[in-house]
Amino acid sequence: MGASRAQPRASSQIGADEVRYAVDVAAGRRPASLLLRGGRVVNVFDGSLAPAEVALAGRLIASVTAAADAAGAAAMAPEAVVELEGALIVPGLIDGHVHIESSLVTPAAYAEGVVPRGVTGVVWDPHEIANVAGMAGVEWLLERCESLPMEVWITVPSSVPSTPFETAGAELGLAEIEALLEHPRVVGVAEMMSFPAVVAGDETELSKVALAEAARKTAEGHAPELAGRALQAYLASGIGSDHESTTLTEGREKLAAGAFLMVREGSVTRDLQALLPLVTPRHADRVGFVTDDRLPHDLLDEGGVDCLVRRSIRAGADPAYAVRCASYNVARHYGLRRRGAVAPGFVADLAIVADLQGFAARAVYKDGRRVAEDGRLLRAAAAGPGERPAPAGAVLGTVRLPALDATALRLDDPGGPVRVIEALPNQILTRALTLAPTVEGGRVLADPARDLLKLACLERHGRRGSVGVGLVTGFGLTRGALAGTVGHDHHNLLAVGADDGDMLTAAARLQELGGGFVAVAGGRVLAELQLEIAGLVTDAPLDRVESAMRALDAAARELGVTLPAPFMALSFLGLPVIPELRLTDLGLVDVLAGGIVPFAAEG
Amino acid sequence: MGASRAQPRASSQIGADEVRYAVDVAAGRRPASLLLRGGRVVNVFDGSLAPAEVALAGRLIASVTAAADAAGAAAMAPEAVVELEGALIVPGLIDGHVHIESSLVTPAAYAEGVVPRGVTGVVWDPHEIANVAGMAGVEWLLERCESLPMEVWITVPSSVPSTPFETAGAELGLAEIEALLEHPRVVGVAEMMSFPAVVAGDETELSKVALAEAARKTAEGHAPELAGRALQAYLASGIGSDHESTTLTEGREKLAAGAFLMVREGSVTRDLQALLPLVTPRHADRVGFVTDDRLPHDLLDEGGVDCLVRRSIRAGADPAYAVRCASYNVARHYGLRRRGAVAPGFVADLAIVADLQGFAARAVYKDGRRVAEDGRLLRAAAAGPGERPAPAGAVLGTVRLPALDATALRLDDPGGPVRVIEALPNQILTRALTLAPTVEGGRVLADPARDLLKLACLERHGRRGSVGVGLVTGFGLTRGALAGTVGHDHHNLLAVGADDGDMLTAAARLQELGGGFVAVAGGRVLAELQLEIAGLVTDAPLDRVESAMRALDAAARELGVTLPAPFMALSFLGLPVIPELRLTDLGLVDVLAGGIVPFAAEG
Repeated sequence: MGASRAQPRASSQIGADEVRYAVDVAAGRRPASLLLRGGRVVNVFDGSLAPAEVALAGRLIASVTAAADAAGAAAMAPEAVVELEGALIVPGLIDGHVHIESSLVTPAAYAEGVVPRGVTGVVWDPHEIANVAGMAGVEWLLERCESLPMEVWITVPSSVPSTPFETAGAELGLAEIEALLEHPRVVGVAEMMSFPAVVAGDETELSKVALAEAARKTAEGHAPELAGRALQAYLASGIGSDHESTTLTEGREKLAAGAFLMVREGSVTRDLQALLPLVTPRHADRVGFVTDDRLPHDLLDEGGVDCLVRRSIRAGADPAYAVRCASYNVARHYGLRRRGAVAPGFVADLAIVADLQGFAARAVYKDGRRVAEDGRLLRAAAAGPGERPAPAGAVLGTVRLPALDATALRLDDPGGPVRVIEALPNQILTRALTLAPTVEGGRVLADPARDLLKLACLERHGRRGSVGVGLVTGFGLTRGALAGTVGHDHHNLLAVGADDGDMLTAAARLQELGGGFVAVAGGRVLAELQLEIAGLVTDAPLDRVESAMRALDAAARELGVTLPAPFMALSFLGLPVIPELRLTDLGLVDVLAGGIVPFAAEG
Repeated sequence: MGASRAQPRASSQIGADEVRYAVDVAAGRRPASLLLRGGRVVNVFDGSLAPAEVALAGRLIASVTAAADAAGAAAMAPEAVVELEGALIVPGLIDGHVHIESSLVTPAAYAEGVVPRGVTGVVWDPHEIANVAGMAGVEWLLERCESLPMEVWITVPSSVPSTPFETAGAELGLAEIEALLEHPRVVGVAEMMSFPAVVAGDETELSKVALAEAARKTAEGHAPELAGRALQAYLASGIGSDHESTTLTEGREKLAAGAFLMVREGSVTRDLQALLPLVTPRHADRVGFVTDDRLPHDLLDEGGVDCLVRRSIRAGADPAYAVRCASYNVARHYGLRRRGAVAPGFVADLAIVADLQGFAARAVYKDGRRVAEDGRLLRAAAAGPGERPAPAGAVLGTVRLPALDATALRLDDPGGPVRVIEALPNQILTRALTLAPTVEGGRVLADPARDLLKLACLERHGRRGSVGVGLVTGFGLTRGALAGTVGHDHHNLLAVGADDGDMLTAAARLQELGGGFVAVAGGRVLAELQLEIAGLVTDAPLDRVESAMRALDAAARELGVTLPAPFMALSFLGLPVIPELRLTDLGLVDVLAGGIVPFAAEG
C-alpha cells in the first residue's frame, strides 16, 4: 500500500470542518448548500414515509425537518433549492456483498451502470483480482476506489488461493489479511468459503476470523446448505453473516442462529423469491440485500441491488423495510457510520424516486452532489477513461504463459477408458464421466462428432508454466476453439476446442490482449473481448462489454456451441471446490475425493 | 492506567482457545461444559420463543439446537446438565446507561444487587468519580471492573468539570478522553451534557465527538427537550443517542431523527410509561433500556434494568422485543460483539426465568458460570470486601478541606435583601427568592423560625480551599446540620444547618470518614454513612447502605426536616446547570443568567 498504508485516510472519512458545517446549517447559522423541498423521506428508523425538507451541508445531511420548521425564521436561505413535487427521498442503496469482477468491468464502469439506479455504495469482495494480483492488486483497487461516484468498501478475500490443487497468481496469508484490515475502506474479512475447515476447527481459518474481530471488523460467511450442528459450529467461530441461503428453511435457521441474513439475487443464483417471507420488519436489522455476482447484461437490464428493492416491494414486502435492507441494515452490519439513512449527520448519498415499487431514480446524489439523473450518470461525475488513473503494473500484463509449441496440448492415449468432464447447461456443477476416448497414432484427439472436445488449463501467472489437458463434453462445438483468462478461482487460461491449433491461437491472442475472451476458428479470431486488467475486467463501459459478450456468444453458436453462456461455463470448469470433476493447471481434480486424479479412469 | 495502557486486554475479550472450544463443542468433537436442557430460548433475532438446548463451552455458547438435534449421535455427553423444565433462557440483560455512583456503592456491591435479577452487564458513565478523581479515578475503576460477576463497560465522562463556576477535583481534557478511548472496556464518550455548546458548534465539544468517531466508538447524547433545528444540529455532530426523552412526542422526534432512543426508568426520572408506545418491534434496533440513576432503595426494591423489561411487558410490550431492548439492541449500539443474544459464539451471559412478565431470575450465568440463583449471588461469584482489590490512593482520602475556624461560615450583612435558594420537594429544580435576612451584630444568621438556614459549599479536593456560603429555605430543619460530600457535579462538601458549629462538626466528621453523609446536632453525630471511595460510594453492601440512608433520613426528620430525601436534595443544591439558583464553592450561581452573582440581591 506504500505511502497510503502509513496514512490511510479514505476520502469516505468525514472531516471536522464538514461536521461543523452541518451543525451550522442545521442550527441556521449558515445557508444549506442545497435544500430538497417538497419531497417525502423514507425513514429507516421508524419505517415512516413523511413529507420533509432535507438540507445539505456539502457532503452531509444537516437536517431533516417538517416543512413548517424549515420555513421558519431560523433557517437561512439555501444556496440552491430542488423542488421534488412529492417524490421520495431514499438513502442511497448499499449492496452488501458483490464481486464486481463478475460484471467484467472496473469499479468505475460498474458505477456508471448502477449509480443512476440509486446504488451509491457496494461492499466488494475482490476475490478474483486478489487471486491474480494478490496484495498489489488489492492495493491498486483500493486506490482506484477513491474517486468514484459510488462508495466502495472492501472485504479482504479470505481464500487466496482457494485450494492446493491449483496455481493462483498470488497468496494472501494471515499477515497480508492483517495488514489490509487496517485500511479504512476495508470493513471485514470476506466470505469464509472453506466452511468445512471452519467447522473442523482449522487453525488458519479461525485465525482469519480472529483477525477481523481484533480489528473490530466483520468476518463474512459463505455456508451453502450448512445446517444443524455444523451451522452452529461455523457461527460459533464468530463469522457474522451468510449469503448462500436458497430455501426458506435454510434462511430461517441461519437467521435464528444469529447470522446476518444476506438475501441474494445474482445472475446465476436467485434467492429472493424463496427468502421473501423473511424480508419483514420483524427481523429488524438482521436482513440485508446483496447481488454477489451479476453478469453485464443483467446489470444493464435489471440493475444492481436496486433490483432486490424493486422486486421485494412488488412481491409485497414492506416498502420502507425493503429500502432498509439495502441501506441502513447493511451499513449497520459493517459498522459504517453516517451511512444508510436520510438523517442529520449522515452522508448525503440519496436517491430521488417517484415511487418505491418502480424504484426508478429521477436523480441521485453522492456526497451531496447530483451525480445522475433520469438513468444517466452526469458527465462531471463519470470519470472518463482518460481521467481515470491508469492501471498500474500489478494488474496489467498478467497473462504470462509458458512457451507453447504445437505439442503443448498433446494427450497420450493411456490405453483404456478416460475421465471426461460433462458441462451441464445453466449450472456450475459438472458431472464426471468415464468414456473410451477417440485415439489416433497413440494420441487422444478431440472428436466433435462425439462432442468430445479438448479442454486445457494453462497456468498464466508466469509461476509454474504448468498445463493441464483433458476432455470435456456438453459444449457442442464442431470446430475452432473458445478461450478465456477468467477461470475461477485461480484464473488460469481455459480453452476448449475441436482443434489444438485453434486453441493455441486463442491462447496467443489472449496473451496479446493481456486477458479476455476469444472465439477462434481456422486460425482466425472471430470475436473477442479484451479484459486487460488482471485478465478479468476492462475499463471499457458496461454496454460495450455486453455487446462484445453477445458477439462472442454468437460466434460460439456459429461454431456449433449449444451450451448456454459458454464462456461463463468455461470459466467454471477449473473451479476445484464444486463437484464433480474439474481441470486445473495441475490436472484433473475429483472434487468429492478431494484430490488430483489421472486422466485414465480407474479399474 | 499504567502497565495496563500498554496491553489493554480486558478479561471481557474472547481468546482464540475459547473460540476453538466452542466450535469443537458445537461440532460434537468435545463435550459441552454445560448443557441447559428442556428450556425455551428467547431469540432476539427473529423474536421467537422456542424450545431448544443450549450447549456451553466455557465462557461461550457453543450451540442452540432443537432438542432432536442435540439428542442426536453427533453430540458428545456434556460434562454437566441442568434441566430447565420449560423455563425461559434469556440473554443476560445489559443496562445501556447508568451512573453506578447514584446507588452509593462500588460496582461490586452494585453487581450483588442486580446480577441475581438477571442483569449481567452495564454501560457505566463514571461521571461522578471522574469529577473527583479524574483520570486516576477512571483508571482505578477500569481495573476494578475486571473481576466482577457483571460486565462493566465504560463511557468516558465528557463534562469534567461541568461548568467554570465550580472547582471540581479534576479535569478530563481532550488528551485524557483520547487516551481512555483506547481501553477495550471503553465503548464511547459519555453523554454530551453541554448540548447548547454542541448546537452552537463549540470546537471542544465537537472534538470530543470526533475523538469517539475516530476510535470507532460512540458519542452519547443528553438533550432534554431539544427539538426541531436544535435537535437536528445536535445529532448532525455525530452524537448517536439520547436518554432524556420524557414525552412521547419528544421520543418520537428523536427516534425519527436517528438517535438511539434510550428509554429511562431511574429513581427520579421515570419515562417508561410515556415512551411505551415506542417500545415496538417496528423500531427494530433503535430502542434501548437504561436506568441512568437509581437510589439504593429503588435498586433493592425494583432492581436495575430488569425493572424496565418487567414493566414494559406487563404494560403490553412485545416480550421478546422488551428483552431485546435490554440486551442485543444495547450491545449493537455500542458495537459489543458476541453480546446480548442466546446464539452460537455469544458469551454465555444468561438468565433463566419462569416467565417474562415476572422476570424473576431462577438462575443467572455469567461467562458460562452459575453466579446467582433464587435472587442471591452465589458465594463464589461475590468477591467479599476482603477479596476485592483495596481502593487505591486516587480514590481514597479525597476529602481535603481547608483549615476551618469558627468564622469560616460567617455571612456579613450586605445591608438589604439577599438571594435565597428555595429547595423544592421531589425535584432538582430550585427557585431563586429575594428576602430580607435575619441579622445580628452585622452578621446574617440562620433563622429556623423562618426556615432560613445556612448553606455552605466547601471545596474539598485540596485545590482552592474556597468556601461558598448562602441561605436556603425549604428544608424545615429546626436545629443541627446535615452535610454530605456528594454534591453534583463537582462533589464539594455541602452542608445545611441551623447552627454554624454543627455544620463545622459535620464537615470535620466527613473529613475523618473520607466522605459520606452525616446528621449532626449539639456537636454530636446522630447518623452517618461512610462513602470512603471518592467521597461518593462505599464498598459496603447495598442493604447496609440503604439502612444507613434510612437512619440518616430519620435523624433529619427528628431535626425538623420536612423536605423528602433531604440528603439527595442537598446533593443537587450545588449543581450549576439546572435552574434557578445554586451555591458552589465559588459562590451563588444564577443558572439562567449563566454566572456567579453576589449574595446581595440587585436593586
